[in-house]
Amino acid sequence: SSSTKLLIKGGTVVNAHHQEVADVYVEDGIIFAVKPNLKVGDDVKVIDATGKFVMPGGIDPHTHLAMEFMGTESVDDFFSGQAAALAGGTTMHIDFVIPVNGSLIAGLEAYEEKAKKSCMDYGFHMAITKFDDIVSRDMEIVVKEKGINSFKFFLAYKGALMVNDELLLEGLKRCKSLGALAMVHAENGDAVFEGQKRMIQLGITGPEGHALSRPPVLEGEATARAIRLAGFVNTPLYVVHVMSIDAMEEIAKARKSGQRVVGEPVVSGLVLDDSGLWDSDFATASKYVMSPPIRASGHGKALQGALSNGVLQLVGTDHCAFNSTQKAFGIDDFRKIPNGVNGIEERMHLVWDTMVESGQISITDFVRVTSTECARIFNIYPRKGAIIAGSDADIIILNPNSSFEINARSHHSRTDTNVYEGRRGKGKIEVTIAGGRVVWENNEVKVVPGSGKYIETPPYNYLFSGIDKADASYLSSLN
Amino acid sequence: SSSTKLLIKGGTVVNAHHQEVADVYVEDGIIFAVKPNLKVGDDVKVIDATGKFVMPGGIDPHTHLAMEFMGTESVDDFFSGQAAALAGGTTMHIDFVIPVNGSLIAGLEAYEEKAKKSCMDYGFHMAITKFDDIVSRDMEIVVKEKGINSFKFFLAYKGALMVNDELLLEGLKRCKSLGALAMVHAENGDAVFEGQKRMIQLGITGPEGHALSRPPVLEGEATARAIRLAGFVNTPLYVVHVMSIDAMEEIAKARKSGQRVVGEPVVSGLVLDDSGLWDSDFATASKYVMSPPIRASGHGKALQGALSNGVLQLVGTDHCAFNSTQKAFGIDDFRKIPNGVNGIEERMHLVWDTMVESGQISITDFVRVTSTECARIFNIYPRKGAIIAGSDADIIILNPNSSFEINARSHHSRTDTNVYEGRRGKGKIEVTIAGGRVVWENNEVKVVPGSGKYIETPPYNYLFSGIDKADASYLSSLN
Amino acid sequence: SSSTKLLIKGGTVVNAHHQEVADVYVEDGIIFAVKPNLKVGDDVKVIDATGKFVMPGGIDPHTHLAMEFMGTESVDDFFSGQAAALAGGTTMHIDFVIPVNGSLIAGLEAYEEKAKKSCMDYGFHMAITKFDDIVSRDMEIVVKEKGINSFKFFLAYKGALMVNDELLLEGLKRCKSLGALAMVHAENGDAVFEGQKRMIQLGITGPEGHALSRPPVLEGEATARAIRLAGFVNTPLYVVHVMSIDAMEEIAKARKSGQRVVGEPVVSGLVLDDSGLWDSDFATASKYVMSPPIRASGHGKALQGALSNGVLQLVGTDHCAFNSTQKAFGIDDFRKIPNGVNGIEERMHLVWDTMVESGQISITDFVRVTSTECARIFNIYPRKGAIIAGSDADIIILNPNSSFEINARSHHSRTDTNVYEGRRGKGKIEVTIAGGRVVWENNEVKVVPGSGKYIETPPYNYLFSGIDKADASYLSSLN
Amino acid sequence: SSSTKLLIKGGTVVNAHHQEVADVYVEDGIIFAVKPNLKVGDDVKVIDATGKFVMPGGIDPHTHLAMEFMGTESVDDFFSGQAAALAGGTTMHIDFVIPVNGSLIAGLEAYEEKAKKSCMDYGFHMAITKFDDIVSRDMEIVVKEKGINSFKFFLAYKGALMVNDELLLEGLKRCKSLGALAMVHAENGDAVFEGQKRMIQLGITGPEGHALSRPPVLEGEATARAIRLAGFVNTPLYVVHVMSIDAMEEIAKARKSGQRVVGEPVVSGLVLDDSGLWDSDFATASKYVMSPPIRASGHGKALQGALSNGVLQLVGTDHCAFNSTQKAFGIDDFRKIPNGVNGIEERMHLVWDTMVESGQISITDFVRVTSTECARIFNIYPRKGAIIAGSDADIIILNPNSSFEINARSHHSRTDTNVYEGRRGKGKIEVTIAGGRVVWENNEVKVVPGSGKYIETPPYNYLFSGIDKADASYLSSLN
Ligand SMILES: [Zn+2]
Ligand SMILES: [Zn+2]
Ligand SMILES: [Zn+2]
Ligand SMILES: [Zn+2]
Ligand SMILES: [Zn+2]
Ligand SMILES: [Zn+2]
Ligand SMILES: [Zn+2]
Ligand SMILES: [Zn+2]
Repeated sequence: SSSTKLLIKGGTVVNAHHQEVADVYVEDGIIFAVKPNLKVGDDVKVIDATGKFVMPGGIDPHTHLAMEFMGTESVDDFFSGQAAALAGGTTMHIDFVIPVNGSLIAGLEAYEEKAKKSCMDYGFHMAITKFDDIVSRDMEIVVKEKGINSFKFFLAYKGALMVNDELLLEGLKRCKSLGALAMVHAENGDAVFEGQKRMIQLGITGPEGHALSRPPVLEGEATARAIRLAGFVNTPLYVVHVMSIDAMEEIAKARKSGQRVVGEPVVSGLVLDDSGLWDSDFATASKYVMSPPIRASGHGKALQGALSNGVLQLVGTDHCAFNSTQKAFGIDDFRKIPNGVNGIEERMHLVWDTMVESGQISITDFVRVTSTECARIFNIYPRKGAIIAGSDADIIILNPNSSFEINARSHHSRTDTNVYEGRRGKGKIEVTIAGGRVVWENNEVKVVPGSGKYIETPPYNYLFSGIDKADASYLSSLN
Repeated sequence: SSSTKLLIKGGTVVNAHHQEVADVYVEDGIIFAVKPNLKVGDDVKVIDATGKFVMPGGIDPHTHLAMEFMGTESVDDFFSGQAAALAGGTTMHIDFVIPVNGSLIAGLEAYEEKAKKSCMDYGFHMAITKFDDIVSRDMEIVVKEKGINSFKFFLAYKGALMVNDELLLEGLKRCKSLGALAMVHAENGDAVFEGQKRMIQLGITGPEGHALSRPPVLEGEATARAIRLAGFVNTPLYVVHVMSIDAMEEIAKARKSGQRVVGEPVVSGLVLDDSGLWDSDFATASKYVMSPPIRASGHGKALQGALSNGVLQLVGTDHCAFNSTQKAFGIDDFRKIPNGVNGIEERMHLVWDTMVESGQISITDFVRVTSTECARIFNIYPRKGAIIAGSDADIIILNPNSSFEINARSHHSRTDTNVYEGRRGKGKIEVTIAGGRVVWENNEVKVVPGSGKYIETPPYNYLFSGIDKADASYLSSLN
Repeated sequence: SSSTKLLIKGGTVVNAHHQEVADVYVEDGIIFAVKPNLKVGDDVKVIDATGKFVMPGGIDPHTHLAMEFMGTESVDDFFSGQAAALAGGTTMHIDFVIPVNGSLIAGLEAYEEKAKKSCMDYGFHMAITKFDDIVSRDMEIVVKEKGINSFKFFLAYKGALMVNDELLLEGLKRCKSLGALAMVHAENGDAVFEGQKRMIQLGITGPEGHALSRPPVLEGEATARAIRLAGFVNTPLYVVHVMSIDAMEEIAKARKSGQRVVGEPVVSGLVLDDSGLWDSDFATASKYVMSPPIRASGHGKALQGALSNGVLQLVGTDHCAFNSTQKAFGIDDFRKIPNGVNGIEERMHLVWDTMVESGQISITDFVRVTSTECARIFNIYPRKGAIIAGSDADIIILNPNSSFEINARSHHSRTDTNVYEGRRGKGKIEVTIAGGRVVWENNEVKVVPGSGKYIETPPYNYLFSGIDKADASYLSSLN
Repeated sequence: SSSTKLLIKGGTVVNAHHQEVADVYVEDGIIFAVKPNLKVGDDVKVIDATGKFVMPGGIDPHTHLAMEFMGTESVDDFFSGQAAALAGGTTMHIDFVIPVNGSLIAGLEAYEEKAKKSCMDYGFHMAITKFDDIVSRDMEIVVKEKGINSFKFFLAYKGALMVNDELLLEGLKRCKSLGALAMVHAENGDAVFEGQKRMIQLGITGPEGHALSRPPVLEGEATARAIRLAGFVNTPLYVVHVMSIDAMEEIAKARKSGQRVVGEPVVSGLVLDDSGLWDSDFATASKYVMSPPIRASGHGKALQGALSNGVLQLVGTDHCAFNSTQKAFGIDDFRKIPNGVNGIEERMHLVWDTMVESGQISITDFVRVTSTECARIFNIYPRKGAIIAGSDADIIILNPNSSFEINARSHHSRTDTNVYEGRRGKGKIEVTIAGGRVVWENNEVKVVPGSGKYIETPPYNYLFSGIDKADASYLSSLN
């Protein structure tokens, strides 16, 4: 429509590989030109970005919208969660399809239904919770026909989503054969189960029991295990929600040796510590419950350091919001508190404030860790993750001299609490453009359900580059 | 008998904590006095040890005599294996009782039967291969009534001895409650199984396939996992046959943090490398097959370094000898080659030559790693592992100016091959005294079946010291 | 001139951030357009690159052309060395200006003179060998007026170039205040001196004495020291010629913590091992002498792993070629063998073959480590290091299906030996375009002296981003 | 005298290698017998130790009594400091002789004079602050004729005690040739100097500036450097006052590789953190000033873990007490605050409470880290550090059910403050016997000046064992 001609004038256009002062011209949802001093007709809406940063919209690699979990469903659905995202400068997310009774196809159909109300672009990962010939065949179908290029394995949630090493090995091999990326939730589920029993036996039933029952050592263990098994199969691995020094150091060690491992910290792990879990008010304490747990002070700072130098690569949220009434399911037993925190709306601002304003990363790095690297890993770059001619017009304008404040009253998520309540910082995303349309401006979200598109993610991302050659080289070395 | 009065004169008596020139007087199988210039009567046999080292007899913490395994039985039984041990200066060993159909008691009875022909002192560890109320109860019985203070868990041998993490956690808790030491064979059995299939699919059926199918990363993984789970339970852990840098570094990391982890290298891992497995002669190559595999050059040297500074603590053998006819079961498929190498006779000489003669450890350290530390860990020190008044008279005399040579023709094991074939070195154990009797002298073993004693090993060794206080301190920190 | 209109058709254009099939149009030495299916006039020379890779010309961050050193001068001057570079696909290098009697200005003048015969673009680093007010002032002059943004400190070469920690600290502070990058040659010069004396005393005078006198531990020590002092000053550090696991691991550790450290392996360190130094032929052995020494087998493979994941960032050569007659100065004393190996011509081919053909890195990574990262670090990106509209037309065309072979007969360096003699591999740079002119085609170099340009490198590269904010944040934390 | 016959009855006698219930009989300052149920005559004083631990008196490896330093002299001299030591269960210490104008002999004479008032046994280390032929010769004299077997090198205190790498290398070689142990104070003195200037420039003149000016990274740097240079020379190294994780991890890494490095934490580093330095009261804050500084919370706990497993080996104090009037020299400039804390009296109680009562080490370990290991390292075991027949009668009796409290009012040091003020804990040393005399009983010290003896420490301790063989083996590998 005619409304989709836009010119963003005079800003500093920032890509992960370069930044420069330039104008950006958008037409029909696509970036048409990026050049200084573009001339356009009168029918073009002009947005002045002078003194501001014009950047690719954020991509959140890790969300759970409308997820059925622990006997309830996360409160943000594909409309409310996405609206919140857009208000926070995120223009795409990748959600996890959970199989229905083990069926990938049935799970995908359920998520396609959930996603009909989408108001921004989205992609899917798929969880694998059992393995047999049907799952194996369906993995091929979803990769080749359904646009999914990543499968997640849970090493925790014993009795529910958890897989054992035998299944993980089968899954890693199948991922490799399909060019799909294996992802892991890395905690030792058997030990977590043991830790939970221990806490209950000790009479510790409150939210602090959540942290105490699954300490960093269990995350470190599972991360080390998954990395080594992926190395044994020689296939890339993506570790979701790296929450601890223990896990990060395993990733660093593997990467030093040349192994292809990606580490995703989440914003809660980067900027919070576990003290909230000891709050005497259950409503307050319980909102911090997620898995792996938010860790003691010191872990977040270490994760920031690793992120700044590419030891960790991209920032997600694990956005999985529950209301305080849902969190209250666990008032007598922390094991029943639905696991999850918000973040889809706050991620971009918090990463900017924590990492850029503190001097830890550059603005090009900001784009890299919030958008470009995600697009590269899920193989949709430069359609997403870049402001270059031909890319989708998913763009944000950030004013570094303005500031933000977070609270549950004003946020766009449906949840009635916010784990970042009261937090302020520098940098404000003033405009979000998604698919060429201005969807966030003047502190207002303007979207309609159904306007979001499903983005297919093709297999064989850059992490697979050369895997075949390395295998061939290994095999020939055997003779 | 009157023949048991001995005076060892003029040698340098070496204990782990001190060495000095002194005489040693033995009566009735017990060391009676250790002092310079002892005067004795005419009825005392005097052995001149001038210029030689008088040391506690070796204790091998890790053997498999007469073990039924992989469809056959290891060729050295409790007589031949022990005779070989005595010829090499080892006066006690601890063997692994394997349950019969999961029954600990039945397994123990079988081993008591096997051990009737013993000609030297021995103790037992017990393997745990399943876990239920009966096993749990029997663990208590064998600890409290049968003199066993250590239980071994196999993380490899899928479909046979292997346990999963749930069982391992139960086992660790049970060990802790009994004051028994948990031991692990640390390789990831699921991945080994996968690696074996892969090699066969690649057409690699020879002994080299054994090494290729279970690389160091799988030992590192399982070692890391066992250590972290033991840390989570807060109980001591003993890692048997540490064969790789990968495993050793996990132990070092844990120990640096204060965790109680013991690492046992075995002599084959210290002094051999994997090149033999590529020998074109099957009989030669197959004799090196043991698990975890003997590693590439470099691992052994690193293990020696760690041993020299107490990062690893004591040296075993995993002596489990098979004849070439038994090894030939796997002529078409390395998976069928019985796993095991000799070592019970060679250990003391090889550790001396490799560690002391090279200048890496002192002679007191030699005593520590071959005898004293084993006695301390299995809680029989100073009855064993020391030359002090009151200790059992298990004594060796080593001549540092003499030399040894190893070959299958002259060794005392029943096996027809020797993985150390042709090896020579400095230092010769000229006399072995076991239970106060000279059993090895002038290159001759003099023993009769049935002369060995079962040594009960009590629970709550020194590694348990303070565990209760640390637990109490943790618990009180929770409130 | 009319000769400068070029169209490179149908190739895969590879930038560090993206690759795509496109045409590249060049005019007046500048890349004018990068798009599929460009239409051009008849006056444009068209080069068919179908099936080939069109990539930014290599940039060698570390060379020593016409360097006076150890009583002689490296044989490749700014013409012959650059001609060799172009034949190997490198279109720019950065050489080290050595002060004259401690004077930076005099040193720069001498190098400006040397560089008059240049046939390709070049930049300068500057060595700092003493520190006083004049040096301090001259550092400012060369940064602000002379286009130099990097200063190198030698922790080795005692009695010649070496600086002590006091000077290094002053230098680091001065670099920081100017936005200039500090570089270090990291070996402990005092210990090297000691090691050299020791070898001579032992009667080891041959080239192997070079390696034995300065083992990896001395490189690890100096690397650790320089990194920690740079961290203490909070200024970025660039470690030249990382040759050992020891040094690499120090860099990895610092980067994991968020410190800004760049590690430059050189091609000799990546692909060679030290066995050549033991060659009984002095002429052969001596050609491998460089500092730090080429290391034992294993180090190169580890450096490759680190390079593949960005633990190390870019590949140099330390090209400093000497003839066998010059190497013969040290026939009786390895300390007199001029230190240096060739590489400026071979780098691109060897990195391709070793890293890309083996499956360790992707083609975009190849561009990153051979060109783009160097341009970014020395702050001349995207003028250099990219194939995008507006960049200098420094371009290579590599045929992945062709192959290369290296030998002294056919190379373009003036030296009469080659440390890669006889090496073959896949991938052949068939065309080099420098400044918009085809300078290498049909195995022929076509250049004239004086056609190269000096490229000024501005201060405050991306590594300085946020340093001020981090400092401010630290200071405010003190109160 | 007749008063020197003692029988300590019924206690648990604890040596580093073993503990048992036994009586201890002492005559003429020597332990005569250690056996259960000893019978003695009426002239023997009997001390009932039932339910208590009878242990070797503590040996403090690191003290500075009557030291002239920073323009003043530490307040505890060889009488008051030793009296305090005895009251705390320490029966020997080793003090550092500081050369006079570089002269070792003059320094030694001065210390012999200071030591005339000694009331307990003591030994000497010697500092080396310059190196020339005279120093080299004098090193030989003090080793061979004066009973000193250890030399300390300061890598900090620029302009005063500090040595550079060239001197350190000479010193390490000289130590090796004499069989003397090299010790280092490991901080980078150039960087400390820089850090001090920086703090003053920032207007930070208070005691917190002390910590801020010399952060852990500078201790880690110097520790790494000293270790690697000692490794290069292949001589043992003793790192005094290990205060940080950074330094400890360097020691752990070296030990893992087999290098002979000893790490000495001091009690202040184990049990305090740096928060006191920020106390707004100068008198309070300044008493914590020592070098390297007491570190932030977390370091101490990590050092405890390393100590518990032998990664660090023995505990010292660096006792160097100054009055508040002396500390006040630096009221306007932290650089002038005399560096040093008390500890000689508190060490044994604090190690017991922190390590044994918390369950981190056993009682035998307690003896090892407070006494035996020190005796072994300084080559006076088993004369010191053991309760066996023939050892010096330096004995303490600790009541585990009693408790201690520390404060400046009741302590025996002359200083008017105590860095452990108000600290209480379990375990009380009720009796100290030194040289066979009861010197501490019923909370009373009974000693006279001049009753202490100088203990000569012979060269070639156990750390030198095999160094010659390792060197020979390296040399033969070169050919
Ligand atoms: Zn998860
Ligand atoms: Zn999740
Ligand atoms: Zn085993
Ligand atoms: Zn075994
Ligand atoms: Zn250099
Ligand atoms: Zn160079
Ligand atoms: Zn000191
Ligand atoms: Zn001191």
